[in-house]
Amino acid sequence: MNSVPSRWESLCASSSVLRFVDVNLRGIGQVMFQDNPLSGALFLAAIAWGSFAAGVPQVLFGGLVAVVAATAMARWLRVDPASLRAGLYGFNAFLVGLALATFVAPGPLLWVYAILGAAVSVVAMSATVHVAKTWDMPALTFPFVLVTWLLLLATYGFAGLAGTALPAAAVVAPFESVAATRLDAGLFVQATLLSISQVFLKGSVIAALLFLAGLAVNSLSAAIAALAGAIVAVITAHLLGAESDLVTGGLLGFSPVLTAVALGTVFNRPGLRVAAYAALGTVFTVVAQAAFNVALTPLAIPALTAPFVLVTWMFLLARPALDAAAADQARG
Amino acid sequence: MNSVPSRWESLCASSSVLRFVDVNLRGIGQVMFQDNPLSGALFLAAIAWGSFAAGVPQVLFGGLVAVVAATAMARWLRVDPASLRAGLYGFNAFLVGLALATFVAPGPLLWVYAILGAAVSVVAMSATVHVAKTWDMPALTFPFVLVTWLLLLATYGFAGLAGTALPAAAVVAPFESVAATRLDAGLFVQATLLSISQVFLKGSVIAALLFLAGLAVNSLSAAIAALAGAIVAVITAHLLGAESDLVTGGLLGFSPVLTAVALGTVFNRPGLRVAAYAALGTVFTVVAQAAFNVALTPLAIPALTAPFVLVTWMFLLARPALDAAAADQARG
Amino acid sequence: MNSVPSRWESLCASSSVLRFVDVNLRGIGQVMFQDNPLSGALFLAAIAWGSFAAGVPQVLFGGLVAVVAATAMARWLRVDPASLRAGLYGFNAFLVGLALATFVAPGPLLWVYAILGAAVSVVAMSATVHVAKTWDMPALTFPFVLVTWLLLLATYGFAGLAGTALPAAAVVAPFESVAATRLDAGLFVQATLLSISQVFLKGSVIAALLFLAGLAVNSLSAAIAALAGAIVAVITAHLLGAESDLVTGGLLGFSPVLTAVALGTVFNRPGLRVAAYAALGTVFTVVAQAAFNVALTPLAIPALTAPFVLVTWMFLLARPALDAAAADQARG
Repeated sequence: MNSVPSRWESLCASSSVLRFVDVNLRGIGQVMFQDNPLSGALFLAAIAWGSFAAGVPQVLFGGLVAVVAATAMARWLRVDPASLRAGLYGFNAFLVGLALATFVAPGPLLWVYAILGAAVSVVAMSATVHVAKTWDMPALTFPFVLVTWLLLLATYGFAGLAGTALPAAAVVAPFESVAATRLDAGLFVQATLLSISQVFLKGSVIAALLFLAGLAVNSLSAAIAALAGAIVAVITAHLLGAESDLVTGGLLGFSPVLTAVALGTVFNRPGLRVAAYAALGTVFTVVAQAAFNVALTPLAIPALTAPFVLVTWMFLLARPALDAAAADQARG
Repeated sequence: MNSVPSRWESLCASSSVLRFVDVNLRGIGQVMFQDNPLSGALFLAAIAWGSFAAGVPQVLFGGLVAVVAATAMARWLRVDPASLRAGLYGFNAFLVGLALATFVAPGPLLWVYAILGAAVSVVAMSATVHVAKTWDMPALTFPFVLVTWLLLLATYGFAGLAGTALPAAAVVAPFESVAATRLDAGLFVQATLLSISQVFLKGSVIAALLFLAGLAVNSLSAAIAALAGAIVAVITAHLLGAESDLVTGGLLGFSPVLTAVALGTVFNRPGLRVAAYAALGTVFTVVAQAAFNVALTPLAIPALTAPFVLVTWMFLLARPALDAAAADQARG
Repeated sequence: MNSVPSRWESLCASSSVLRFVDVNLRGIGQVMFQDNPLSGALFLAAIAWGSFAAGVPQVLFGGLVAVVAATAMARWLRVDPASLRAGLYGFNAFLVGLALATFVAPGPLLWVYAILGAAVSVVAMSATVHVAKTWDMPALTFPFVLVTWLLLLATYGFAGLAGTALPAAAVVAPFESVAATRLDAGLFVQATLLSISQVFLKGSVIAALLFLAGLAVNSLSAAIAALAGAIVAVITAHLLGAESDLVTGGLLGFSPVLTAVALGTVFNRPGLRVAAYAALGTVFTVVAQAAFNVALTPLAIPALTAPFVLVTWMFLLARPALDAAAADQARG
């Protein structure tokens, strides 16, 4: 197996076209923290499947146009080459492209919008990295959330860009379930898998399996954390009495999945204490997701991955305490 | 008098149970910046009185459960021991517990929610301390505000948690007083005292007197600042034409009281210039409180102490200018 | 020409009254980054014209009262003398005064409010400078936006202060143009010029020409950048299908004009790459302006220059990448 990646790397070294493909695939892989072109390729296959199956091929193309535009923009700006090669200037743009093509009606202006959003996401990423490194923090998907929120809000002010599939604006009202909803085994599995695929704004079981495969080829523990995070999120949301459609559609689980992968495997060394800490963060991300859904109701825009960014930053900033504990445990 | 505290301290040194009680009482005292278990005990008595008198004993228990859970969580995370002993990891959780038990209907999930909120408040505190120390700033009650806002917003998305006593969502509309309201001596005294007791979400004159006693046993100047801040806040709110019920219920005064204590005594050395500076901050906190009340109207959640946090951070961050002035005055 | 400024400076050196006038004029000039009393005098003339022509002389007086109050407050706080002399503690207060007198009904409390806002804007400026210098960032008009938002929101809670000309609160709804609106040459010129005069909340062609003159006397490139930014903003807003009245009234252009001047001339050395970078920022500020207009709809307050602050901070924070590119280009 190891020979395939190394053959790919030597091919990239000899071809600027392949290097460009490699950077973009890594950019797609970085949506779930995987600096691996094969992960990116599997993620891309998942999105291709999900987009065509749902009859919205423009979502796939939106993502592709955006990630390519971002890579070009990042080269023009000459950002830090190591970060660029690792795909760190691509994943936010890729998500911007997917989100715009999902929430805005197709038309020429959509593509202008996607390229504008991708270019600005590179600037936003560079700015976020600059500020976040003050406390040794990663940028996460903050640039995606910020840029996409602005672009989506602005569609309400522009006749040229019609929002589709955007939530309707309303005054906040308590949710009351009409009857106790049961979550049987089939729905539970569906809810868990869609929680993973919704990281890329897709509601597809097959896409979810491809995403898990993309994680596993680079990091088995990341795949396990994603699955565990999804299960914790579904159970939490169900016990707190969340709307069934949100739970089974994976719409309360995608931010927690990212939190679980980030806190459980990427930025902390896996272990029992870290697992407990990541589980707390994952549970609280479900609360934060519900909170953002409510808070954004009057603005008629989706929460995207803002709950993940907020909770994960909070739990990473508090890490020194956790590390001290871990060091102490290691000594004991 | 001095022998009682020192006897208490020697008792604590010999008993881990008493040490645990001591940390939790200091945590309650730190809500108003008092690192003193006697202050905490008097504050607790005030809340006990206010909760039982109002027929909501669960508010007292909510606070107690949360502060104990937070102390346990802080020990598990092994946060900075000196800060932990001074109660700095307890006061935000105590407020989270009081607020949840005040605004969410009783039931088993309320207690799950209170413990979750308490545990996350420790993480939020640790994160806030980490960021705020960049500019030598205290965390204040920011962790309480952030965690409670998310938990309360999320209740609108969960059928298992019903908000009670939460404000109703509405579109922003100007307040028009139907007639000039007079603020006679009795109402003025009530408004002033309730402004103090509302720091702990309680509307009780007796509780207010116990809070003042709790301040005075540790810092007479803090008690004076709290009283002066409440008076300034009531006068300001009345002159600007605020709703009478808000003024006499102390609901526009609790954030200004905290600002007055913080700027006037805790973080600056008391004096004439500092008093003028704190008074400006106190007046502006009344404006900020009204502004947050309006801004949160569409979201149907209370402002909590966010106006205090915002204004006090602003006035503390600008302190170098004030200090320079003070130094200059000293030289002159 | 050079002798007039130097004669003014020697007059100022000999008279504390003239020094006070000088500081206040520079404060007005700094709204558009010009540390020059003549620029400030021309800007003031523009506002005087605009205010009297529109029958709202209180707007001029609001600005004047605020800038003078801020200078007095800054002296009392003994802020950094060099920044004070350069007018950096005046421009936010000047805008606070203009905005309050524009959006709040005249009356005795308006003047109390303007002086309070001016004094607090100095504190907010000092705090913002303290935080922003961590990343070598300028404060821009953030203090103005923050303080004015709080003061305007609070008017909805105070019967003594009636908002006038404030937008009405509403639920967010998509804008649909009833028919394709043509933007003929006359309207295009009007839209461009009003985009410049709206930086000071004025919709007047003559005022716009005076503002351009005020820029040109200190920096020809700033005047060109303002004009180019206005043109880019009008074209962008029109192509995206923005509401005609907003475009021709300059209400989507004033933030982009500030972005263009800031990114194109003040904080970067003018050049081709910088012009492209500033153009991208200018285009995105149009999107951000529309987004803020939508986001603030439920709160019934104007966006002010928040879009300029957000986008310009973002593009300045990402500057290291641009600088690296420029350095590289210089080497090549």
